[in-house]
Amino acid sequence: MDIQAMKELAALRAADDLVRGGMRLGLGTGSTAVFVVRRVGMRLAAGDLKDVKVFVTSFQTELECERLNIPYYGLNSPELAGGLDLTIDGADEIDTENRLIKGGGGALLVEKLAAYNSGCFVIVADESKQVSHLALRFPAPVEVIPEARLAVSRALEKLGAVVTLREALRKAGPVITEHGNLILDIKFREAVEPEDIEKRINLIPGVVENGFFTGPREGWSRPRVYIGCGNGAVEIRD
Amino acid sequence: MDIQAMKELAALRAADDLVRGGMRLGLGTGSTAVFVVRRVGMRLAAGDLKDVKVFVTSFQTELECERLNIPYYGLNSPELAGGLDLTIDGADEIDTENRLIKGGGGALLVEKLAAYNSGCFVIVADESKQVSHLALRFPAPVEVIPEARLAVSRALEKLGAVVTLREALRKAGPVITEHGNLILDIKFREAVEPEDIEKRINLIPGVVENGFFTGPREGWSRPRVYIGCGNGAVEIRD
Repeated sequence: MDIQAMKELAALRAADDLVRGGMRLGLGTGSTAVFVVRRVGMRLAAGDLKDVKVFVTSFQTELECERLNIPYYGLNSPELAGGLDLTIDGADEIDTENRLIKGGGGALLVEKLAAYNSGCFVIVADESKQVSHLALRFPAPVEVIPEARLAVSRALEKLGAVVTLREALRKAGPVITEHGNLILDIKFREAVEPEDIEKRINLIPGVVENGFFTGPREGWSRPRVYIGCGNGAVEIRD
Repeated sequence: MDIQAMKELAALRAADDLVRGGMRLGLGTGSTAVFVVRRVGMRLAAGDLKDVKVFVTSFQTELECERLNIPYYGLNSPELAGGLDLTIDGADEIDTENRLIKGGGGALLVEKLAAYNSGCFVIVADESKQVSHLALRFPAPVEVIPEARLAVSRALEKLGAVVTLREALRKAGPVITEHGNLILDIKFREAVEPEDIEKRINLIPGVVENGFFTGPREGWSRPRVYIGCGNGAVEIRD
């Protein structure tokens, strides 16, 4: 079973198990989350699902919803102002305690906003995303205002990170996020304590958000994780 | 002596005492900091000061520098890439331990970036800015991405804050910051622990920065404060 099939397996299982009519639903970004979006669109079109109020975490998800005729709402709209019931999203890395790195797709800011404002937060991923320690193999993104690029890079290096400015393709220079910022991708040479790192990075002036998702925090718990495995099974881990 | 005169007194004293030729100098924003900008401009024009490399913290300061022919540089430019030697800025409230509220002028994001990247950080203010506890009388600003307005308001209320969206004048609706965000002004009904509040607010997803300046933190200490007093004296407090 290839990686794409494992992603789809986890996504369909979560979308079928968890998405119910009347829900306020956050839809994530990326190559696994898009299978959830499509499944929700299919269930709505079939009439199997009704009255779902969707919040999209990026332009990618917005465009997919437009294509599939899924109505979506702002997080400040009367429909969603009280928060979301459920958000389903992908992840770049998941450790053994369900702590995550997200933001390979550059949408970490609104993804974290959705995650921390959902009664239930669920991750769908293929088995290759599991690691024992975060940010050793896959980088964690740090979204920064352009003026702060070098100042934040220095501060991150003091925390032990190896820092790379994310370069764009099909656009000259660096990637610009949906909020007009830059992304510094950071890796570590040895295991770090993710809760501590998430907090310390967000205290650096010029940092808008970072891609470590380490809850639990006030009113929020770690995600439930659906892992699509090469043997065709879906492992569900709380 | 009126408030304006006290502001000018503190500003001129700090600008004359501390600004030296060859310095990399952060210039703050607001009605007190502007006196520093003008003094630096006057000293440069008189030839009493040479070769100062200025970083401006807002459009206001940028325009003032243009008017006064003060050259300024980006924080990522070779001139300033290593950080600043000194930043002089104003404050909205200063407590007895030199912790601050800043951002009445809406420039808190870049002001904090400058402050935390300066070898020396100095506040100039009139005596009315002194308080025993922050954010009881004057609100602390929280800069948030527009999508997060209600979600962050809820999270701030859980911390005990009374939250008001900052409304614009001479523009319909809310103030938009120089980074395209909104400002939530928050006050507390009883004294809070500023270090704790600064950290907790910056961990709320959707918050870009907040106006509590409570160092010391890694590589950064609390500001030296120049207070212009009604009796014509300047009190200097470390």
